Amino acid sequence: MRILVFNAGSSSLKFGVFDMDGATIRHRLKATVDRLGRSTAELKLVVDGRESREDVAATGVEAAIAAVPVILQRFDFGAIDAIGHRIAHGGERFAAPAIIDEPVIAAIEALTPLAPLHNPGGLAGIRHARATWPGKPQIAVFDTSFHLKNPPRATTYAVPAAWREAGLRRFGFHGTSHKYVALRAAEALGENLRDLRVISLHLGNGASACAIQLGESIDSSMGMTPLEGLVMGTRSGDVDPGIFGYLQRNLGFDAEAVEKALYEESGLKGLTGTADMRDVEDMAATGDAAAQLAIEIYAYRARKYVGAYAAAMGGLDALVFTGGIGENSAAMRRRICEGLGFLGLMLDTERNGHVDLTDHAVPQIQAYGSRVRVVVTETAEQLMIAREVSALLKAPANGALTVPVAISARHVHLDQDAVDALFGTGYSLSPAGQLRQQGHWVARERLALEGPRGRLDNVAILGPLRARTQIEISRTDGFALGIAPPVRDSGRLDGTPVVRLIGPAGAIDSDGLIIAARHIHTNPQDAARLGLKDGDEVDVRVGQGDRALTLSGTLVRVSPNAFTEMHIDTDEANAAGIEGRADGELLAAEATIKPSAPV
Amino acid sequence: MRILVFNAGSSSLKFGVFDMDGATIRHRLKATVDRLGRSTAELKLVVDGRESREDVAATGVEAAIAAVPVILQRFDFGAIDAIGHRIAHGGERFAAPAIIDEPVIAAIEALTPLAPLHNPGGLAGIRHARATWPGKPQIAVFDTSFHLKNPPRATTYAVPAAWREAGLRRFGFHGTSHKYVALRAAEALGENLRDLRVISLHLGNGASACAIQLGESIDSSMGMTPLEGLVMGTRSGDVDPGIFGYLQRNLGFDAEAVEKALYEESGLKGLTGTADMRDVEDMAATGDAAAQLAIEIYAYRARKYVGAYAAAMGGLDALVFTGGIGENSAAMRRRICEGLGFLGLMLDTERNGHVDLTDHAVPQIQAYGSRVRVVVTETAEQLMIAREVSALLKAPANGALTVPVAISARHVHLDQDAVDALFGTGYSLSPAGQLRQQGHWVARERLALEGPRGRLDNVAILGPLRARTQIEISRTDGFALGIAPPVRDSGRLDGTPVVRLIGPAGAIDSDGLIIAARHIHTNPQDAARLGLKDGDEVDVRVGQGDRALTLSGTLVRVSPNAFTEMHIDTDEANAAGIEGRADGELLAAEATIKPSAPV
Repeated sequence: MRILVFNAGSSSLKFGVFDMDGATIRHRLKATVDRLGRSTAELKLVVDGRESREDVAATGVEAAIAAVPVILQRFDFGAIDAIGHRIAHGGERFAAPAIIDEPVIAAIEALTPLAPLHNPGGLAGIRHARATWPGKPQIAVFDTSFHLKNPPRATTYAVPAAWREAGLRRFGFHGTSHKYVALRAAEALGENLRDLRVISLHLGNGASACAIQLGESIDSSMGMTPLEGLVMGTRSGDVDPGIFGYLQRNLGFDAEAVEKALYEESGLKGLTGTADMRDVEDMAATGDAAAQLAIEIYAYRARKYVGAYAAAMGGLDALVFTGGIGENSAAMRRRICEGLGFLGLMLDTERNGHVDLTDHAVPQIQAYGSRVRVVVTETAEQLMIAREVSALLKAPANGALTVPVAISARHVHLDQDAVDALFGTGYSLSPAGQLRQQGHWVARERLALEGPRGRLDNVAILGPLRARTQIEISRTDGFALGIAPPVRDSGRLDGTPVVRLIGPAGAIDSDGLIIAARHIHTNPQDAARLGLKDGDEVDVRVGQGDRALTLSGTLVRVSPNAFTEMHIDTDEANAAGIEGRADGELLAAEATIKPSAPV
Repeated sequence: MRILVFNAGSSSLKFGVFDMDGATIRHRLKATVDRLGRSTAELKLVVDGRESREDVAATGVEAAIAAVPVILQRFDFGAIDAIGHRIAHGGERFAAPAIIDEPVIAAIEALTPLAPLHNPGGLAGIRHARATWPGKPQIAVFDTSFHLKNPPRATTYAVPAAWREAGLRRFGFHGTSHKYVALRAAEALGENLRDLRVISLHLGNGASACAIQLGESIDSSMGMTPLEGLVMGTRSGDVDPGIFGYLQRNLGFDAEAVEKALYEESGLKGLTGTADMRDVEDMAATGDAAAQLAIEIYAYRARKYVGAYAAAMGGLDALVFTGGIGENSAAMRRRICEGLGFLGLMLDTERNGHVDLTDHAVPQIQAYGSRVRVVVTETAEQLMIAREVSALLKAPANGALTVPVAISARHVHLDQDAVDALFGTGYSLSPAGQLRQQGHWVARERLALEGPRGRLDNVAILGPLRARTQIEISRTDGFALGIAPPVRDSGRLDGTPVVRLIGPAGAIDSDGLIIAARHIHTNPQDAARLGLKDGDEVDVRVGQGDRALTLSGTLVRVSPNAFTEMHIDTDEANAAGIEGRADGELLAAEATIKPSAPV
């Protein structure tokens, strides 16, 4: 499959040709048209490794795209199977790439107020590409999609409800880059990305940090717009919202003038006069105080985000540097990592000083003994877009398969020591009723849970006994107790919070408090019928009408005699408006997208 | 000494009477006048532990202050020695409390644009108090002073130079509270605050985080205004600066309208309808989704600041909770601390659930084995203001004493192993000249330093050999090498960066790279004459005219045969315009302010 990828800006057009063959991808052609709208635009080409440069007459994005078929013909890349477009802002609508049709175009247009500087270029690219290659599938890939499932605690601004209803929330950008480099880093480390807590620092002309846990973005430093977060080439990143009123009252600037300066005259440029970190570093080395300060601010802000995201994830396994500055400035990487020994991060200064990314290498630059691994990798947004396009076009269209859904109320699994302490040494729990899963029962006995804020009485105990006590509650129960348990698969209890268990014979403090992650129990026969295997994660749609919702990442557990059933907790059931029993519809899983060996 | 302290807002007046006797302070009277400007204001009084409440006729702050002498007379507190005023914003002018005179009042007035909601109340208080108690010393204590020496990397916004020149920078607030609780926590832990890296979380109706290292604030979450940072009762804290343009273009709000809503209709109130965390927690426990989310956002944002400030300080020794929420919500403390095990912070859930602050106790609530200590303490801003007033009035007025100043260029102290590796095994360095400190010399040999960004040739070596190699460079040298060394006292080398040393016989990578902290060498005789003792830290004024500057925290080292001399590095010398030799003027040290035992 041959895929053409467009990244259209207001004054530049980048495009690439990718040949996909199974897991291998060849980046055949790479083109940049700069200075659109000037008297002559400049076309830079790399075709199968050979570079060239020429002046072209192109008055704008439209003319530049019109010239693309001729360029492709010249190198015999005429036969294109599909076209991918990089779009900055997909809003709340696009959690994944979308096949472009009129409703999708209308949706992207409707999102323009959220990215007035960025979405119009992408839209122009789509329109001209549809006119030039009618009938070819065109796919939009959004910078925001990777972050769209960030938890609400990370995406919600503490602002009036009317503003939040008008669309104010955090989105995050550079998603295609963060996703690519996180996958690429995990691959280079020989790990599954799901098993790593990763912070990715994309430090280019734009810059952002992203926290990645369980394979998904959970937070990122850009917000509703690409203005929030780190210091960038010409953008300010974080500032006090109080500056707007101050500048209006004292200098007479309205919000639009302030915003324009925060986008175009701030960041490194505002601090030093130049937006290019290479120039700033040269100035600093000769004693320029403004340049020295700019470097310190840049590194300090990035280092604080590393600390903040480590706190958000409960620790850090890998730090990834990418983007022009992340890839090329050994001094900046070192400065950002300075003082992070408390995280278990130690840099090997020799390796850091001799990073070589030739042939898409992903060098590790941590010191021997560093718990956190530090890697440098080039980013490859166009390549990632080609992968997304290919995966979307290959994804099977599943029919509707259903599983019964059962609601788990709060309950406890006890070990023998806990039974002894709560009910008396040698006590045996009495089964009061059988559960649907073979050999499982609910006990006649009950117990109470107590946290810093409150107490829950009459909590069910399920048998048989386990090797380790596990307490499963809902998020709402957590607020009643005053404890925030993590969402965990059953049995994964390391580092879980402590709660007090109170029985008739005594009380104990036990860890093992979790919100049980949604899961499907099934047996090999049903699994085969449903197209599932042990360890899969699937999306399931539950509920009806305006309470319908899709539960992502539902873990599949296959065991010989299991009764096929999906378990959700009371909060999930309430959200979906389910009382008693219901069915869930299995949705087609998102295709796995892994970078191949060096491209 | 009897001190009256005022904290005057736009619709309330708080005041207190403190009797100071050496290190002991008695808080004799505590008063709050609320609902100023309504038909009747309410006066709450606590006098020597007895509470009372009455309605008073007070149309505003002026009338309320006019009523104070009568109230004081009633309880026989007529004889006041001095009056302290809490002022929100001291701008760049006030690094310390100031005795109020006309120029000080004019300076506070000039700062009103930076704190339009907060400074006018304080100014009104000052004016009425001066009219009521003419001739009594009045002292302004600023919420910003504690943070004013924050390093520029923490205080500088990445915005255009013209805006920074117009006053845009980060200041930080709640300084009196952060200073008090940090000192109080260190005292309760039996440590010197200078030896601890502390994060203080002031979680009240306003809320801020502060990082405290070497006894000084180095960063805090509020910025130019009290709007930046954590989620508060009615304030948003951090938001994307892009929301202003969006709200103006799409909802027609100008910057002032947005700012007003960010101050008054945001934070917990914007998220849930109520600004009171106790109500929010009650709502959350009964399943209210908005309240649950608000609690999660509040804790998540605070936790991220803890991680960020640990990264800023290279680790954490103590976390301090204060303010209404910090003191009273065990559930919120627990939620903020969840997942911070990677920092070495483990909470004792039992202790956290049973915090009792009676009699000004400062309970520790970390678990056994937690590297980070976690304490809860009430804040006491009025008490701290009384201390500052008392300290300022007692500070001695020193005459001008001078020390000669010498400039240290980059140099290296080697250990024997380093000499062997760089110059050949068994090599002896040749002294080429004596230094002024007895027994010290500069070697004929030179070496080179190399970092990730560049190389410094021809670097001097000082003898005699030491037990551990130490490399002293300037901050500018650090930018040339691409390494950011810490400012350290000589000999304190743990955790310092590695640099490559290159000699004629070989190269080694050695840690020990520092920027030498400014210091004064002196002998017992000169020390006595100058009023100094070993380990003192003093402020020294150097340079002339528009290059004059004050070097704070200069360490005094007394040894028997030392030549009295202050050492600064080339950056400091350049900043002060010093070439060759110069004299420095010793300034009066700021009086130490330590909280006494329970007040």
